[in-house]
Amino acid sequence: MNLIQVHPDSDFPIQNLPYGIFSTQANPDPRVGTRLGDFVIDLALLDNESLFGKQYAFFADSSLNRFMSAGRETWRDIRQQLTRLLGEEQASLKKEALIPVSEVQMHLPVNIGDYTDFYASREHATNVGIMFRGRENALMPNWLHLPVGYHGRASSVVLSGTDVIRPRGQAAPKGPPPEFVASRSLDFELEMGFFIGSGNELGDPIPIANAHEHIFGMVLLNDWSARDIQAWEYQPLGPFLAKNFATSISPWVVTMDALEPFRVAGPNQDPAPLSYLRSDSASGLDITLEVSLQSARMDSPQVISRSNMKHLYWSIEQMLAHHTITGCNMRPGDLCGTGTISGPTEDSYGSLLELTWRGEKPIQLSSGEERKFLQDGDVLTMKGYCQGDGYRVGFGEVTGKILPALK
Amino acid sequence: MNLIQVHPDSDFPIQNLPYGIFSTQANPDPRVGTRLGDFVIDLALLDNESLFGKQYAFFADSSLNRFMSAGRETWRDIRQQLTRLLGEEQASLKKEALIPVSEVQMHLPVNIGDYTDFYASREHATNVGIMFRGRENALMPNWLHLPVGYHGRASSVVLSGTDVIRPRGQAAPKGPPPEFVASRSLDFELEMGFFIGSGNELGDPIPIANAHEHIFGMVLLNDWSARDIQAWEYQPLGPFLAKNFATSISPWVVTMDALEPFRVAGPNQDPAPLSYLRSDSASGLDITLEVSLQSARMDSPQVISRSNMKHLYWSIEQMLAHHTITGCNMRPGDLCGTGTISGPTEDSYGSLLELTWRGEKPIQLSSGEERKFLQDGDVLTMKGYCQGDGYRVGFGEVTGKILPALK
Repeated sequence: MNLIQVHPDSDFPIQNLPYGIFSTQANPDPRVGTRLGDFVIDLALLDNESLFGKQYAFFADSSLNRFMSAGRETWRDIRQQLTRLLGEEQASLKKEALIPVSEVQMHLPVNIGDYTDFYASREHATNVGIMFRGRENALMPNWLHLPVGYHGRASSVVLSGTDVIRPRGQAAPKGPPPEFVASRSLDFELEMGFFIGSGNELGDPIPIANAHEHIFGMVLLNDWSARDIQAWEYQPLGPFLAKNFATSISPWVVTMDALEPFRVAGPNQDPAPLSYLRSDSASGLDITLEVSLQSARMDSPQVISRSNMKHLYWSIEQMLAHHTITGCNMRPGDLCGTGTISGPTEDSYGSLLELTWRGEKPIQLSSGEERKFLQDGDVLTMKGYCQGDGYRVGFGEVTGKILPALK
Repeated sequence: MNLIQVHPDSDFPIQNLPYGIFSTQANPDPRVGTRLGDFVIDLALLDNESLFGKQYAFFADSSLNRFMSAGRETWRDIRQQLTRLLGEEQASLKKEALIPVSEVQMHLPVNIGDYTDFYASREHATNVGIMFRGRENALMPNWLHLPVGYHGRASSVVLSGTDVIRPRGQAAPKGPPPEFVASRSLDFELEMGFFIGSGNELGDPIPIANAHEHIFGMVLLNDWSARDIQAWEYQPLGPFLAKNFATSISPWVVTMDALEPFRVAGPNQDPAPLSYLRSDSASGLDITLEVSLQSARMDSPQVISRSNMKHLYWSIEQMLAHHTITGCNMRPGDLCGTGTISGPTEDSYGSLLELTWRGEKPIQLSSGEERKFLQDGDVLTMKGYCQGDGYRVGFGEVTGKILPALK
């Protein structure tokens, strides 16, 4: 009989086996673990015991980068062995290897070299375009031809649970001159992030047919955004300070192998993209997403948006092929965000900017409060999972609380 | 008598003492060196011999990052000691510590966590604005109020001498649909880069009065740009693939202490910026800059632009204060580019886009060829120095050759 029982609603059944970096009071060295139900499994310890047949020294690392760089064959070997060790052979594992999740501290799983954020939801790009530029110019002429993306800030990617200080900066809601303000329109963006496993050399693009081999896994991502700062600064070179004060990710990296059963056809792409972006395989992912908000006066979170990754127009393989087409090199551990994942209906929008239509339709909270944008003390949480037959492959959550601006 | 004689025109007199990472055939481990005239001084060896009084283990590192993180007091202590060791005490140094520059291989000096590029030349922003948006909308309303910047790609920052493959990607010179092309308008951008030494914590902005203490030193930077790809992709989130195929930097990081004597008053800023961007101290830097081009048919390079860093509207201290004002954290080794440094006259523009006015006024080369943009086989070189009284503090050069696009 197995020590670990997994509830059908758990995000972490044996079909998942995500990777993260954890430490414990007994052993404060951050190291690689996987998760099963409410237990974290110490892979450095399993590796030390030679339970994998051969030794993978990278499980003792404080980041997943070396593991990620080992390549897809190694990822699959290890997943297969873990499925055996945590399945039929679980009872033979040492108890010290199985740690209740309440006893671990999670850490940022990856040393992120570069972070790129895309803009791959047609609904989101259209909504934002209407608000910033009017209905006629909502989608830029390039949008249907390439996955628009831009470079983000890697240093300020933080782990779920990290508080977010309301940023201060320049805004000019009525035009210049600008004022120095604590952001009055602090927002979230519901995104998924994907991590590069094996990279490519500078000058050597990754063909779309091979793109999936380079992607290690995914996390939930909240691209916190200060809309008033963004509106003033973003032309002509794009968002900068409005985004780089914090980007939060969930601690467990769910592998592409675990997500493979939840592939769905992507949307019809018309006009057909150029050939370097064309792929025949199912490129969408059916990941149910949910955003909730809890103000300081509320006792429990209230769901404010339900969306799904399958709504994205551009696939993550298209994003990666595009990212490297001019020769840009990707390194193990590089992070790409999908951009805000908005669905087609008003309750599926992935940001407050869209949900409240720039504040025109405030959200009513169960506490009687209303929200146009995030207030101090608000806790914003995103969850996501793939529904299998009697099990879920889930991402846990990414959460963060808004702290008041500096004086 | 000193072993090393330094010519008055050398970039590397005793007043300079820049830092770089080098290796030799005899010792292929990359390590920290400084430079005097035509010699590289092995600082790992000096440190091993305990010549600094105390030991700094970071000189044996393969990057400057740990040295940079040690902070300004340590940087100054070491500079003072090197001035003595390489000055009056030079004759007592072991010969193995002094290596002719012809015998060393230089390496990328820093592990760059994040790379940011600014847009701080009013002349450049105006020129580009006129070409892309017309004279009326040349400078965006925000430009005179903040140093516009955006996140660049750290992974594709390469060392001077690295060949640059002409990038391929989407362009739509006549509007959609786009074509897949090898870039027809490959360009350079003449910039300086500055490296962060000691960083700041997330949420804790660097005040402008302290900004200089966080800046370790500077390099020449060529922000290679594919203009046709840029024009199609850059709206609304800024340049992406048009820039991330390569950014070249010079190998020797010249310290701010060496540059301090060449401070000059910055330009008058009208309107006055918000207080977090205001500083009383001289914020400009008098660095003479020169760009030359040599085609495959030419025997020697031809100077095509002469500019100066003092033309920049925004100072590097303003850039750093602005970068962190919303709370963004900087880490030791982060790189910031100034943006193209164009002067007020047509022969001082810092890009071919401006020098040839988008190809309308081709440059005549001594070979009888003309250039609108870079051609395969072209070698583009930037140099820079500060002129002292009887000596120069220089940057050496950053150079790169254009290779044909992939088939």
